[in-house]
Amino acid sequence: MSTAVPGPDGAVTSSSDPGPDPQSWPGLAPQVADVVRSVRQSAPLVHCITNVVVTNFTANVVLAAGAAPAMVATPAESGVMAGAASALLVNLGTVEGDQPDGMRVAVEAATASGVPWVLDPVAIGALPLRTALAAELFERGPAVVRGNASEVQALAGGRGGRGVDSLDTPDDVRETALHLARGSGAVVAVSGTVDLLTDGVRVVRVHAGHPLLTRVTGVGCSLGALVAACAAVTDDRLLAATAATAWMCVAGDLAAAAHPGPGSFAVALVDRLADVAPEAVADLAGLVAERSGAAA
Amino acid sequence: MSTAVPGPDGAVTSSSDPGPDPQSWPGLAPQVADVVRSVRQSAPLVHCITNVVVTNFTANVVLAAGAAPAMVATPAESGVMAGAASALLVNLGTVEGDQPDGMRVAVEAATASGVPWVLDPVAIGALPLRTALAAELFERGPAVVRGNASEVQALAGGRGGRGVDSLDTPDDVRETALHLARGSGAVVAVSGTVDLLTDGVRVVRVHAGHPLLTRVTGVGCSLGALVAACAAVTDDRLLAATAATAWMCVAGDLAAAAHPGPGSFAVALVDRLADVAPEAVADLAGLVAERSGAAA
Amino acid sequence: MSTAVPGPDGAVTSSSDPGPDPQSWPGLAPQVADVVRSVRQSAPLVHCITNVVVTNFTANVVLAAGAAPAMVATPAESGVMAGAASALLVNLGTVEGDQPDGMRVAVEAATASGVPWVLDPVAIGALPLRTALAAELFERGPAVVRGNASEVQALAGGRGGRGVDSLDTPDDVRETALHLARGSGAVVAVSGTVDLLTDGVRVVRVHAGHPLLTRVTGVGCSLGALVAACAAVTDDRLLAATAATAWMCVAGDLAAAAHPGPGSFAVALVDRLADVAPEAVADLAGLVAERSGAAA
Repeated sequence: MSTAVPGPDGAVTSSSDPGPDPQSWPGLAPQVADVVRSVRQSAPLVHCITNVVVTNFTANVVLAAGAAPAMVATPAESGVMAGAASALLVNLGTVEGDQPDGMRVAVEAATASGVPWVLDPVAIGALPLRTALAAELFERGPAVVRGNASEVQALAGGRGGRGVDSLDTPDDVRETALHLARGSGAVVAVSGTVDLLTDGVRVVRVHAGHPLLTRVTGVGCSLGALVAACAAVTDDRLLAATAATAWMCVAGDLAAAAHPGPGSFAVALVDRLADVAPEAVADLAGLVAERSGAAA
Repeated sequence: MSTAVPGPDGAVTSSSDPGPDPQSWPGLAPQVADVVRSVRQSAPLVHCITNVVVTNFTANVVLAAGAAPAMVATPAESGVMAGAASALLVNLGTVEGDQPDGMRVAVEAATASGVPWVLDPVAIGALPLRTALAAELFERGPAVVRGNASEVQALAGGRGGRGVDSLDTPDDVRETALHLARGSGAVVAVSGTVDLLTDGVRVVRVHAGHPLLTRVTGVGCSLGALVAACAAVTDDRLLAATAATAWMCVAGDLAAAAHPGPGSFAVALVDRLADVAPEAVADLAGLVAERSGAAA
Repeated sequence: MSTAVPGPDGAVTSSSDPGPDPQSWPGLAPQVADVVRSVRQSAPLVHCITNVVVTNFTANVVLAAGAAPAMVATPAESGVMAGAASALLVNLGTVEGDQPDGMRVAVEAATASGVPWVLDPVAIGALPLRTALAAELFERGPAVVRGNASEVQALAGGRGGRGVDSLDTPDDVRETALHLARGSGAVVAVSGTVDLLTDGVRVVRVHAGHPLLTRVTGVGCSLGALVAACAAVTDDRLLAATAATAWMCVAGDLAAAAHPGPGSFAVALVDRLADVAPEAVADLAGLVAERSGAAA
């Protein structure tokens, strides 16, 4: 592999990056299958502080995966719950009332107890309350940040110099994601037609997933919960985020093959999350790994 | 057409009203089809401030229609969102916390930006908080008010002289709806077995829709969001409300034909909203237009 | 039947309890069928103050049962609604903001109007806010308390001497449930693989229900609403709780027979709640009644 040269601002010059190398993470597929299997066997308790639009769907996705959801947002209880959970999701989709304090308390308890937590900075950028809150929470050290290209760009403070409108694909923010991951220690998982996930060194792309996944509300948000469930069963958070993304995308492809309407697709998606074979998740996800070439 | 004579209180004397005249809006059907087509093509951003029972279903209905939902209720963000949206829905189903302020901020921003907004005064009348809030918001000039006969009656301050129990059908509040529309400039859309919609001059009835639509929570509420989506693509708000109502009713009839249970009906309803042909919406809705005969 | 002897603390000595006696409530099955029939015929208005995860599913379950849901939590309106309703559910799943006050106001209005209300103390025990609130509300005299074994144990203040981890089945808390029921006058309905319900004298077990019921979020919570619906049509609250439990379990068994995935199972569950015959609910529920033998 060639060596990428960081530019003056620390960004990796993409022209010197190696291309994807399927051999760069030889054991990835069986490891992904193991994560799926392990979630089903250990049924981790996933504490979700999430938005009011997707609470029900998220809980059902977590249950379908074989894990156990707990949705407690009030600061009077969120610390107790987060400290007792196997993983925590903090999703900023509809921040209201004292939910920000509930998130702070939960993150503090999770950190104190060594519980991995996932940050989903939904729609940050233009909306002021959540943008500031995302920046604050990001400083507290999530295990994984999950978002789309625009959200990852906004979390990075707009670095990259592109307008939001052009941020259509995860690869558009590849360097920003690498930079964020290296600076924070968090895995950055960028959702899109081809998902891109990185821990700052390794980069995985998931070449799976159907457009219908974007026609059902809460798929991205519940993916955040699924990432948390997977982070409960492996310390390799890039593997956890990859397994969760592969699981959702492959279940979506299987569901879409039989259900072209968004209503019945959403139902079938939950069914397939529950019954897809671990090996199928690994084999059908179109996983391609590379190394960014820029060791810290 | 005969000319109706407004009574002393401005109400139209129904005995002098003309009967429905299918020819009074000759281009209605193709215009309805155009609205459906236009929503799918332009994917308007529909900002929904709605109740906690129906957020998920409403977002999925908006997505199925081809539009994009955004659910932001906090006053810290609702103005930014409403100003950037293509249309706004304000639904009073579960007004809690600072949601009233979130609605006020959103309506102010929508008004300032020329964004059409829909008011759904859910269950006003007996419940004090929402009844006062509906009256206040109604003064701010919604493009469309959508409700059932009792809600429209309550919004009019109880004029009409009938008890709530007898307000079974939209035609029971026909004159109240006309009066409200003329006084406010808003289109008034009254849902029921036969839906009645008016801008104060034109009256449209939709002779479609299945009883199962009343066995699924959120159908009426998500119709409000669909009206908003349609209002984003045409300045004729009566046409927008008619197209949305026809879309929901025809999708409901198609779904009910194959799914007699309310659970599977709800799923199929979302599927049919997504795939029903624009011409089918127009042709199967049983649209009948008339002119009230009382020019302003 | 042998006579059980209460111990020094009032607890029934289990060794002297009679075994289940199918003949101890000869008219139970037709009475259960009558309750189902009556809910469908009278369509009671069920006021639900419940958690944000399950509002939509709960409303759809109530509608599928033939009743009418109303979800109003704000203290500005919850008293008006509760006083006008046929029954009330208070579910502590996500107590936030001013919901505790909304519950207090609703319970007070329900009590004043003779409206039966159901308490569902979700996940009390470890979580402090809801545990204290459950204790407070329980003092106000619910018609029925519905929960799992751990929640019933926690409501009783931990009496019984077992750790939470061992409280796997309703029969583990049989004596606690009897004691709670006798002390409060409330029916105590304990959900589990075999459900156990008691008014302190009679004990009913429901030997029905499928594991998939635990793979869909909100089934237990919506069972609370169904208990409320049934309590609206009979003054015998043990009968009401039994009918609701039988209804949910039998619908679940019928749904699971055709839908092994949790997504499609949830949809079919709603369908079966709507169309299951009243006699089937009674006959397929595996109802076994006994008398505890300790008359008050």
